[in-house]
Amino acid sequence: MIATFVVGTTATARIDGISAAGAAPEMMRHTPAADAEIVTYGRPVFAPTTPVSPSGCPTPSIVTRAVLDHLSVDAMVLDAGLAARTAAPTVSIETSPGDDVRAERPVPNAEVAYEAGAKVGRAITDEELLIGESIPGGTTTAMGVLTALGEPNGVSSSLPANPLERKRSIVEDGLDASGVEPGGLAGRPMAAVERMGDPVLATVAGLLAGATEAGTSVTLAGGSQMVAAAALARHAGVDASLTLATTSFVEADDAFDLRAASDALDLSTGVTDPGFDADDHVAFERYRRGEAKEGVGMGGALWLADRAGVPMADVRDRIVEYYDDLMVDDGSE
Amino acid sequence: MIATFVVGTTATARIDGISAAGAAPEMMRHTPAADAEIVTYGRPVFAPTTPVSPSGCPTPSIVTRAVLDHLSVDAMVLDAGLAARTAAPTVSIETSPGDDVRAERPVPNAEVAYEAGAKVGRAITDEELLIGESIPGGTTTAMGVLTALGEPNGVSSSLPANPLERKRSIVEDGLDASGVEPGGLAGRPMAAVERMGDPVLATVAGLLAGATEAGTSVTLAGGSQMVAAAALARHAGVDASLTLATTSFVEADDAFDLRAASDALDLSTGVTDPGFDADDHVAFERYRRGEAKEGVGMGGALWLADRAGVPMADVRDRIVEYYDDLMVDDGSE
Repeated sequence: MIATFVVGTTATARIDGISAAGAAPEMMRHTPAADAEIVTYGRPVFAPTTPVSPSGCPTPSIVTRAVLDHLSVDAMVLDAGLAARTAAPTVSIETSPGDDVRAERPVPNAEVAYEAGAKVGRAITDEELLIGESIPGGTTTAMGVLTALGEPNGVSSSLPANPLERKRSIVEDGLDASGVEPGGLAGRPMAAVERMGDPVLATVAGLLAGATEAGTSVTLAGGSQMVAAAALARHAGVDASLTLATTSFVEADDAFDLRAASDALDLSTGVTDPGFDADDHVAFERYRRGEAKEGVGMGGALWLADRAGVPMADVRDRIVEYYDDLMVDDGSE
Repeated sequence: MIATFVVGTTATARIDGISAAGAAPEMMRHTPAADAEIVTYGRPVFAPTTPVSPSGCPTPSIVTRAVLDHLSVDAMVLDAGLAARTAAPTVSIETSPGDDVRAERPVPNAEVAYEAGAKVGRAITDEELLIGESIPGGTTTAMGVLTALGEPNGVSSSLPANPLERKRSIVEDGLDASGVEPGGLAGRPMAAVERMGDPVLATVAGLLAGATEAGTSVTLAGGSQMVAAAALARHAGVDASLTLATTSFVEADDAFDLRAASDALDLSTGVTDPGFDADDHVAFERYRRGEAKEGVGMGGALWLADRAGVPMADVRDRIVEYYDDLMVDDGSE
């Protein structure tokens, strides 16, 4: 088993009010680089601080790292357009940060990113591969891709009140700018990313295509964004069985229909409840209120923990340790 | 235990006749990127081919990988100036390929590389750290640094006939161009790298300084280049105990005095003989003739295998498997 994390950035994330993946908009560019460091080292190294939402919700990467501490799973990070340096070892996918989804071609090198992801996927010799992501604004580009492909396009949100109408309006602007009709890029997955997506989606789709081709069993760790990646792979002709592992928070999001997505794309699903209701520590408070929900492989990591028989109480204890460590002293230098 | 590999390139490697780290001079720029892939995946992925010397000696990275297959040791790669893409996950040290050692300042950002290495070293939470390298032409820059610091400056070679006088002449040219006297930069290690070294040396020195500061036990896996890195760390005030683990091939090189180096720099040493004389497979032939000798952590990996009780015959069997796999079909696509 190896856990991979595909991380990147876009100008889409700078659109006001669509993402909670940073304390302030100017901090969001650091979030994926910091998340990569936290899953690798357990703390920020080059990154200035531990990512939090505007209301102080800690990044789900500490949940993922807390699980990895309980299991013997290697982490590997793919850089699909970071905007800040990271001390985590990363596979450099030959791509740049994505442009604004309202541009005509926000991801001009989607095909290159897909092929690089596929090469890495084919090189992985582990029996099982978990894929997570960190890209602020990623549910909006996921909606863009799902719409262009003509798949169910309801998406979840890292905000407690999902700004769904705002996202739909942004995606409509993007479709207009790209000259694409809903469903108009069915069967042309990399065209869909190029016009409406982000470089992380292209890379995840390639990674899972390459890995399944090599006989590796793939679990997509996340919600709407991983559904979009699965849709891309399906439209690229990948028919291997795929599992989507996410959190109970995503399942509970009315804007996102997990059942419809899994039916449309033939995905097995695993939903894990980390039991944050059972602990009144401040680390869990914002999650209980519906913030974050998912990200950096959180749902897949929890699913792995559950499968391995690690009690959720032990996972929560470790999360609290990270929270106390990283929120009091943020670990940067 | 984590095994790290610091990889990079310089224009020094393009000087005729000083390195065997590539079938031809124009292939050498790919060697460290390919080595990083081989220790990570067991084969080249983005790299066009498996590195060999002009006479066909296979890269020592297959020896290191063969050992890692027998042990449960994570590999981590630091990119200190690669000139080609690699599919291996790498920590990106903010540096570029080094210039020719005969330039005035071949490594202008030595200090930055040292500090980045130190940050990564402090972030490593393993009890033990092994450090290997891959940088063509590295023994010449090692000689440059050792000379500038005033330490014993005999160095080993990847060629069967060590072009020692050629290296001395290059180093003299470098000293002239940099306005440095032998020993003139004692106590100023990053000035020595900036004027006479390569970015890998700066990064290894920083990595070991940061790791030992954090209480991690460090083993330098290599010969002359790791002696130069140790010298840099000592001149930077690092007084932690350090082990140098290398091969019997390096120990047997008359140009390099392992005892003098370990005495001068207070290093424990471990020398491992992989028993290549016991097997007449073609994979070992060039090593038996004195080629390669060391590199990509080979000596340290063999030392780990020995310590863990892995029979050298088992290591050799695995090397043969890699050789047959990578030399017949070079694994690239």
